[in-house]
Amino acid sequence: MKVLKYMLIFIPISFIAEFMHASSSIMFILAALSIVPLAGLMGEGTEEISFYSGPKIGGFLNGTFGNATELIISFFALKQGLFEVVKSSIAGAVIGNVLLVLGASMLAGGLKHKTQTFNKKVVEVSSSMLLFAVVGLCIPALFTHTVDVALLNTRYESLSIFVAIVMIAIYILSLIFSFFTHKDIYSADIEEEGLTAKWSLKKAISVLVISTVLIAIESEFLVSGIESITKSLGLSEFFVGIIIIPIIGNAAEHSTGVVMAMKNKMDVALEIAIGSSLQIILFVAPVLIFLSLLFTPMSIIFNQFELIALIVAVLIVNRVSNDGESNWLEGVQLLAVYFIIAASFFIL
Amino acid sequence: MKVLKYMLIFIPISFIAEFMHASSSIMFILAALSIVPLAGLMGEGTEEISFYSGPKIGGFLNGTFGNATELIISFFALKQGLFEVVKSSIAGAVIGNVLLVLGASMLAGGLKHKTQTFNKKVVEVSSSMLLFAVVGLCIPALFTHTVDVALLNTRYESLSIFVAIVMIAIYILSLIFSFFTHKDIYSADIEEEGLTAKWSLKKAISVLVISTVLIAIESEFLVSGIESITKSLGLSEFFVGIIIIPIIGNAAEHSTGVVMAMKNKMDVALEIAIGSSLQIILFVAPVLIFLSLLFTPMSIIFNQFELIALIVAVLIVNRVSNDGESNWLEGVQLLAVYFIIAASFFIL
Amino acid sequence: MKVLKYMLIFIPISFIAEFMHASSSIMFILAALSIVPLAGLMGEGTEEISFYSGPKIGGFLNGTFGNATELIISFFALKQGLFEVVKSSIAGAVIGNVLLVLGASMLAGGLKHKTQTFNKKVVEVSSSMLLFAVVGLCIPALFTHTVDVALLNTRYESLSIFVAIVMIAIYILSLIFSFFTHKDIYSADIEEEGLTAKWSLKKAISVLVISTVLIAIESEFLVSGIESITKSLGLSEFFVGIIIIPIIGNAAEHSTGVVMAMKNKMDVALEIAIGSSLQIILFVAPVLIFLSLLFTPMSIIFNQFELIALIVAVLIVNRVSNDGESNWLEGVQLLAVYFIIAASFFIL
Repeated sequence: MKVLKYMLIFIPISFIAEFMHASSSIMFILAALSIVPLAGLMGEGTEEISFYSGPKIGGFLNGTFGNATELIISFFALKQGLFEVVKSSIAGAVIGNVLLVLGASMLAGGLKHKTQTFNKKVVEVSSSMLLFAVVGLCIPALFTHTVDVALLNTRYESLSIFVAIVMIAIYILSLIFSFFTHKDIYSADIEEEGLTAKWSLKKAISVLVISTVLIAIESEFLVSGIESITKSLGLSEFFVGIIIIPIIGNAAEHSTGVVMAMKNKMDVALEIAIGSSLQIILFVAPVLIFLSLLFTPMSIIFNQFELIALIVAVLIVNRVSNDGESNWLEGVQLLAVYFIIAASFFIL
Repeated sequence: MKVLKYMLIFIPISFIAEFMHASSSIMFILAALSIVPLAGLMGEGTEEISFYSGPKIGGFLNGTFGNATELIISFFALKQGLFEVVKSSIAGAVIGNVLLVLGASMLAGGLKHKTQTFNKKVVEVSSSMLLFAVVGLCIPALFTHTVDVALLNTRYESLSIFVAIVMIAIYILSLIFSFFTHKDIYSADIEEEGLTAKWSLKKAISVLVISTVLIAIESEFLVSGIESITKSLGLSEFFVGIIIIPIIGNAAEHSTGVVMAMKNKMDVALEIAIGSSLQIILFVAPVLIFLSLLFTPMSIIFNQFELIALIVAVLIVNRVSNDGESNWLEGVQLLAVYFIIAASFFIL
Repeated sequence: MKVLKYMLIFIPISFIAEFMHASSSIMFILAALSIVPLAGLMGEGTEEISFYSGPKIGGFLNGTFGNATELIISFFALKQGLFEVVKSSIAGAVIGNVLLVLGASMLAGGLKHKTQTFNKKVVEVSSSMLLFAVVGLCIPALFTHTVDVALLNTRYESLSIFVAIVMIAIYILSLIFSFFTHKDIYSADIEEEGLTAKWSLKKAISVLVISTVLIAIESEFLVSGIESITKSLGLSEFFVGIIIIPIIGNAAEHSTGVVMAMKNKMDVALEIAIGSSLQIILFVAPVLIFLSLLFTPMSIIFNQFELIALIVAVLIVNRVSNDGESNWLEGVQLLAVYFIIAASFFIL
């Protein structure tokens, strides 16, 4: 985690570069390097605040701010009309969490602890919820790809809004489920921590505000550079959206997952990966659809690559969570699937 | 359940309307409202008879008559050559049972009882059987959609008949399994009831005969009205087949499922939903294919929407049955998937 | 198993027929009948050697030679440029193992022993590994079928090689997993056998060498006859590849699976079916891709029928392995799915 702190140096560098009119591609790279530690800081700030706010509001804050970086980057991409980037980064965040983060966690943890166990029940609740959420989100797209698209374009907007409303309703209901009606399922996790705040409330809030502002600025640099970086490196916008942006937005979270797995807290590592995917689908995706109404309405119709990747990822996480155990070979297999997907996207 | 009895008033109303040459759309609505309580009566009649016939024949009667309404409606649709309506109502009955009925049962039961448990073993047998049955039924269609259709039309008839024979053979074998070779798995369920007949055998048989005859008459009204109701409400025949007809045919069953869940008999609610889906696939679908040979042979090639809906429904029920527990949030998720599917079909 | 020995008579018959310039179709049939017992002999030879080599090398030998027949037949098909036959026989070997062999084992075993149990943990490791492997192998094809193929042909070669490297790496890692880091999971199985060698080491090696040479010769007869047998029987090359060749190559293994199930050793039957499928995907498929570089590079892009069959088979085996139990009805269902697939391929 300390390495991340040193990366903060890229923030002033990116400002100087912008001032000196550096090329868009360079701005993309510098912004990417700046966002990684900022996302980490934002996560830390949220966690500190939750010590003061109590577990309920804290859980809500963590849930909502956990993917704030993703949301801010997507907001600027949306503003520029880069719908394909936005949609592919939603799918990419899910597969990144479920294959890359979980794979790396299981590999790192498994090498150190042989066979790791986790609370099957909690993970089953989340992973079956992820199945529902992905299925719900994908149904409009699954139907669309079998129909004449031109004919239906206008109707898709209203279908997308309907799906977005359903998703956000389930998000709110799931918060009620975990903080009110069924909070006992989760209690074990929270108690065992027993930590106290390192920062004062004032510092925590300041960090949160400043990192949010800086992420917003850097995201604008990043998004402006997408077009030129795709040209200069010969990548597709789709590849940037589905592989690169999710890694930038989630790097801090990823490292936490791996650290937890190495401490043999596989439950926490799984909750990070699956919980973060759930928030992307139930909260970030619908919010982006609503935000898009400010500019040009964005439909929630994923392309077929995104669909396949999403469904594959969800089937695998449901299988993995099934037996309450993990080992290094499972980690390798998850990573292998991720790299095969990434390589396939790369050659497209 | 009492509300259903009051709905019987729609039978004479529909007869008067027919006599007064009411429009087809009005006949459709009146017939729909009449079939709902008649299907309920038929179910009650079958159950009463099974007290006299003993559990084996009773189980067989329940299984066979459980979807009689569906079968009768489809017979008349078949006679009129409405193949698309017939096929979509088969798929619709499965997704209705697995998503709508089960979702409503889990929601209603979960709100009252927090976490409900069920016999994992029995449900696993049925739900994995449902997976097999759906996969078997869908394979011809899955292959078809990737091939030039014109070329193969004649061959599909024989493939459909082959699949129908396999399905009905498995249906018979599954009856042998549950009533002879492995009846001990199911014994617990049956014993715990310990009820006695409310009706005399004569009354039960009369009710069964009369309700069957009336359903047949109303089904003819219903089917004749499909064309005009789709026009006047701007719905597609496909939507009528996949959403509306299954609700009409299964409303009585649905309400039983919810009532059982609220009595904390989640096993029974699950058996109604999954068992009814199984009968649709293993018994109703093949019988309809055989019956179609009397008119124009119908192939068992589902369209891609039906395939997706079927496979999604089956994957979800397999996931849900996996942990032997249910709660209100799972119910909400099942309902959400159902409504997203219905909304997608609606805009098609 | 004794019947197999008598079939060795077809070897001299096939040689005489070749000498007498019999038609290619007859050579195909005679070669098929010769390969069945030879594959059985090769399996026996490998097993005998493993008594002398110790369990680690023995396990490796069994794994590697277990699908040697498949590999040799495919090598000659590759040499003749019959890519479609090679690819469909890879998919066919997996579905044959998972549906036909497992189905027959569960049916035969279940009729004798009612409900059979197996070590859920070991089977879960293999079956979830099979899910990963199939998903990894299918991803390039899944993406391909949604893109303009002409555009990308050259790039697919490098993607195929990348996937092949990943697969073989996972194969090696899985050997390390089962023989070194996690060998305790599997220990129970091996100990319980407690058998000794029937043959001298010299005899075992001789049998292995001779049967390999004879299989190679017969495979050349077989492959040369594919074209004329498809014409004379009106079958497609695809049907020969996906149904007939896998049955020829695995008949000996199949009979072992059924015998083990009847001895109530369901663990062994499952390991044969799933383990053999895993070797096909992780070892045979990549080796064939590498070998194809000697002639014309073969891509690993399955067609859509193969994809559907593979994914269906894997989903089913994951479902079946889930509860640690099997019965005759599950066996019937697996066989039913296999026959429906075979019938669909037949009419294509």
